[in-house]
This record gives sequence, C-alpha cells and structure tokens, in this order.
Amino acid sequence: MVMLRRLKKLDPRAEAILINATPDEDLSSNRISTVRVTYAGFDGESHSGLVRASCVRVRSQYSEGTEIRNTRQISIVSIEELALIADSMGIDRLEPEWVGANLLVSGIPDFSKIPPSTRLIFASGTSLVVDLENSPCKYPGEIIERHHPGKGKLFAKAAYGCRGVTAWVEREGKITTGDAIEIHIPPQHIYPVPV
Amino acid sequence: MVMLRRLKKLDPRAEAILINATPDEDLSSNRISTVRVTYAGFDGESHSGLVRASCVRVRSQYSEGTEIRNTRQISIVSIEELALIADSMGIDRLEPEWVGANLLVSGIPDFSKIPPSTRLIFASGTSLVVDLENSPCKYPGEIIERHHPGKGKLFAKAAYGCRGVTAWVEREGKITTGDAIEIHIPPQHIYPVPV
Repeated sequence: MVMLRRLKKLDPRAEAILINATPDEDLSSNRISTVRVTYAGFDGESHSGLVRASCVRVRSQYSEGTEIRNTRQISIVSIEELALIADSMGIDRLEPEWVGANLLVSGIPDFSKIPPSTRLIFASGTSLVVDLENSPCKYPGEIIERHHPGKGKLFAKAAYGCRGVTAWVEREGKITTGDAIEIHIPPQHIYPVPV
Repeated sequence: MVMLRRLKKLDPRAEAILINATPDEDLSSNRISTVRVTYAGFDGESHSGLVRASCVRVRSQYSEGTEIRNTRQISIVSIEELALIADSMGIDRLEPEWVGANLLVSGIPDFSKIPPSTRLIFASGTSLVVDLENSPCKYPGEIIERHHPGKGKLFAKAAYGCRGVTAWVEREGKITTGDAIEIHIPPQHIYPVPV
C-alpha cells in the first residue's frame, strides 16, 4: 500500500506560533503561546478561511478573485532558513514576525523543499498538510526596512528558496509552542514531463 | 515566484465520469454524462464529504476513525493504465466501474505518478488537486471475479503502481464527459531524507 513515510531521524519542534490579526496595517505577525486550529486555519489569523479569493500567485490557474479552497491558511518557516536569509542580507537576525509567518519550526533540513502533501503532525495530534513551497514577495522587505534601514530591498532575492511552505489543516486541535512535530512524506519520484 | 507549471504538450480528456451511490452493496461505480462538483466532491458519490473518518490507509498518521479533512473525495484512473492492468491480468478490458473510479482520463503518461499538489483544471474551470497515488485493495478483485471468474485475485498485484490518484476539489463547478483537462504541476525535486 502506498503510504506516507515518517522521517524518524528528525526531532523537529514548533519554536513559535504567530498571528497576523491586523492585515490592514501590514503582514507582520505576533507571537502567541498556543493556538486553536480548525479546518479554517489558525484562530485569529487573517489568512484563515475555508476558501479564499485567488491571488496573483495562481493567475495561471484562476483569474484573479476566483473563489477557491484556501491552501494558504498557514505560512511556515524554519529557524535554520531564516538564519540563512539573515546571513545573506548581512543582518543579525530575521524575525518570523517580519515575514508574517504563522509557525516557526526547527530541526527540518532544507525545510522549503519538504514535498507537497507532507503531513506535519503535532504533539496533540493536530495535523497540517503542505501544499507548495512559498515564494518571496516585496512586503516583508518593507517591514525589515523599518528595523534595518537600507536592507529591506535585499529580502526577496535573499529569501529565494528559503521562504518556507504554505499549509492547510487536515486534523483539528491545538498547537503549543515547543510541541514535537512528526514529519510524514509521500513516496518520492520525479514525474517524467513530456516534451 | 514558485508557481505551478502547465504541461502544455499534453492533450488530456475526461473520458468518463462515474458515481458510486450504493456503498452498502459494493464499491462499483456507474457512468453519468456530467457531474456537479462542490468543495465536498462529486454530487451523489458515496466518498464525497468535506471530512471523513480516517481509514487503515493513514493509520500511521491517525488512529482509525479520527475525523480528518477528506482528501479522498475523488478516485481518478487513466485509460492507458487500466489497459496495462488488464493486459497483466490476461483479460480484454478492465472497466473503471469495477474499481470504483469517479473519473477516467486519457492522455496523461504515467498517470499514477503525477505529483502531489498537481492541479487538474477542466474545460469549465473546475479544479481538482491530487493528494496521493492510490493503492490497490482487494475489493475491486471481488467485482472483477464476477465478470472474469478466476481473475479477481490477480488484481491487487497487477494494479500496483497503476491505481491512479485520489483528489479533492479546489474550485467548484461541473465536469462533463469529453472535457479537455489542463495539468499544472508543482516544481519537482527529491527531498534529501536524513538518514
């Protein structure tokens, strides 16, 4: 039977949980210790919702504003990749708040390359499904610029390939800072694209 | 920006739409010409639903019977892979009805290996998201046995790697027999599993 495979050699953790509750101001998020998680996403997060209006990222699939299922409920980044981006930008630290992340994880190498349909299962049993690798946009640069003048414009290029993933909720529950995370990935192979 | 990529060299079609409306009898499905598609799946199909009770296939992730989001709303198989299975079993044809498929497609090579998070977008704009490759179980064999006595037990092995995929609805609409299908796949790479 084709099944998901748990990566048992890893010991990942939820390092921080963050919420953006004021999308009219900017995309920055703020830490909370624990969050209730429903099929709509993280409680209180502006990107939550069972459906969303399609954006420019999927304009090759849907004309902008089309109602589609929301697979971008939760933005997840890794502590290791934020350090890589900060190093590349020449700053001490890049805070997950500045990129509007909802979850900061540790202990998952090459986190942005974790495969689509991977399940992240938290201590309580709550489960998130990875949809796609995320891509940098210009807005975090504007927030970073306030903290490190002159550096904001470096973000998009420095973050390429390290921007984490977007995810949606498969099993409801809660996530608490410090939770252990199990990583279950699908079988891997490269689909031979017809040319 | 990391985006889905359309496979433009393909010319896939929806060859048949099928519904199982009597799950208490067996998993076999019956052809209909067109189907209304909502976030819950295909109208009238017994596997539709926004959520489902987790089954043995995901017992390494959830104890059986746990409520989870339903990513197995729709079972999709390809005409080319059904022919391969039939050939391997020594029968003339394997009907999609016998394996309980909801959608029969053509024109997608190695269909069962289409990547997770691939979008199948139909003529009307309706969109399905691939979750995972499906895996053979014993029940189709019991149905095949009625049509080809002595052959049913050959199904599970013959179908391995050719059982199609399971999918869920990203954009609502309808699908009609004969619809052209666009295939949009995510960026491909192998995640380096820590050992």
